[in-house]
Amino acid sequence: MYKIGIDLGGTNIAVGLVDKDYNIVVKKSRPTNAYRSPEEIAADMSAICLEVCEAVGASITEVEKIGVASPGVVDPKTGTAVHADTLPFNRFPLAEHIRQGTGVQNVALENDANCAALGEAVAGAGKGKSTGIMITLGTGVGGGIIIDGKVYGGFNHAGGELGHVVIEKGGVRCSCGRLGCWEAYSSATALIRMTKEKIEECRASGRDTLMFKSEKVSGRTACDAMRKGDAPAREVYEKYISYLATGITNMLNIFQPEVLYLGGGVSNEGQSLIDDLKPLVYSEVYGGSKIELPELKIAQLGNDAGIIGAAAL
Amino acid sequence: MYKIGIDLGGTNIAVGLVDKDYNIVVKKSRPTNAYRSPEEIAADMSAICLEVCEAVGASITEVEKIGVASPGVVDPKTGTAVHADTLPFNRFPLAEHIRQGTGVQNVALENDANCAALGEAVAGAGKGKSTGIMITLGTGVGGGIIIDGKVYGGFNHAGGELGHVVIEKGGVRCSCGRLGCWEAYSSATALIRMTKEKIEECRASGRDTLMFKSEKVSGRTACDAMRKGDAPAREVYEKYISYLATGITNMLNIFQPEVLYLGGGVSNEGQSLIDDLKPLVYSEVYGGSKIELPELKIAQLGNDAGIIGAAAL
Repeated sequence: MYKIGIDLGGTNIAVGLVDKDYNIVVKKSRPTNAYRSPEEIAADMSAICLEVCEAVGASITEVEKIGVASPGVVDPKTGTAVHADTLPFNRFPLAEHIRQGTGVQNVALENDANCAALGEAVAGAGKGKSTGIMITLGTGVGGGIIIDGKVYGGFNHAGGELGHVVIEKGGVRCSCGRLGCWEAYSSATALIRMTKEKIEECRASGRDTLMFKSEKVSGRTACDAMRKGDAPAREVYEKYISYLATGITNMLNIFQPEVLYLGGGVSNEGQSLIDDLKPLVYSEVYGGSKIELPELKIAQLGNDAGIIGAAAL
Repeated sequence: MYKIGIDLGGTNIAVGLVDKDYNIVVKKSRPTNAYRSPEEIAADMSAICLEVCEAVGASITEVEKIGVASPGVVDPKTGTAVHADTLPFNRFPLAEHIRQGTGVQNVALENDANCAALGEAVAGAGKGKSTGIMITLGTGVGGGIIIDGKVYGGFNHAGGELGHVVIEKGGVRCSCGRLGCWEAYSSATALIRMTKEKIEECRASGRDTLMFKSEKVSGRTACDAMRKGDAPAREVYEKYISYLATGITNMLNIFQPEVLYLGGGVSNEGQSLIDDLKPLVYSEVYGGSKIELPELKIAQLGNDAGIIGAAAL
């Protein structure tokens, strides 16, 4: 028997046929074309489920379960896509549409960040661990909480907003409206802001930096220049990982998970990011040398985490 | 059948015989005399268990289970009291000593803050809810996480240190060594510090305040003076609850529990504290008006929470 994971995004619908060991056997995607009605989008999602089966000569009756990773607010109990900024959902019964479109009765729905965390937990950086925290460093700072191998979302399924923890009261305004959220310091967006600020500061003070040469400032600009020995770039990076370490240490003091894994664009910096974070985090974590410490890792599944996590719901 | 809950503190050992509905039938206590050996303290704990049974004419064989709430680091899996600042424990097999001292085989051990949270969950402010967060505003800021009716402590049982979440990076030094922990702004100790600072500020600027009259500054000094219309005292209180609201909102964004309840000395301010916090918290919580919001409450069991929670382990 197979499982299917659907990763629904504002740009693409990605569908994977997944075997019992959470390997993706075949994967197909189509543009979401988010201007369409929810019914049309759901119909496409079902159609791609049938396609991935056809691709391996399997029947949809060999699919025991379909999981959907959807952005924004979802209600897993009822299979309802409540609201998403990037999709036309307003309490849309998405799971029911997939049931009708595929004939598969066991359809589950979950928030996409939670699915990514679950995917890593079953087949990636958290494999074999019962407790894990995923932090996604992208446009925002996303969170996923895995406890006893399951997604924890709180009673109203709005929990796990780990980026919306104030770490500098009265600080930089966050997209959520609060001042000083972790997201406002540790997202890729924040890293870009810090980089731009440093470039301006260098310009104003007549200090030279390799970062002047970057045509478009990205989350990689400071990291790349730093590796070439650029001092202002190192200052940006050190400020960034200082905030990142503060937020990660907070999460360890709260959850003490077996493993905390970093995903999203910034995590492409790889093991060197972990190596730089560890001394900062482990020197501040409560209990420090007296306790066994959680592992810090880079997430392993990349864009497949959502599909695999959806299949594992 | 009865249960027994033991709340072991640095000052007193309190033991309660608890019925199946988590009512304390009889309660007895003795000084801990913490200068003694762990064996002597454990022998006293067992002796009081026998006494509470005698007091109601029951036999210890009618006790199905004994739970122990112990300060500091404990290992519930092995029943070991690992370390406590106020007691002479160094990996002491406390549960085993209670087993031998009472003949009751089912003995469980848990950290005291977690027991208080569990006590409130089974018989107090969190009764009937499966998810709850307890915040204790005392000398420090303690935390207890209840998920699916059970204590969540993390893989190494060092989690739930909710007071050791940095909310003002680079801020006031916390007892744990970090700068800017929630505990450094929302404990009773922090409220006293803020009160003293304001009194000094008033003295230096020649501003009058009722707080001059307090012989010894306590957590109540500012609250009492504020209720009599004192403006500087109100400034202290408003600063204090602003930080408290920030930390509580953080916890809601992470956990979205059905209920968050406040215990400890500062919680004696009662419902007015909750009424003052609600607008601050509910205006900032992620999802705000779109989601069903957690309840905020004052804890209900006072000093009995530890006994009841221990009995409920």
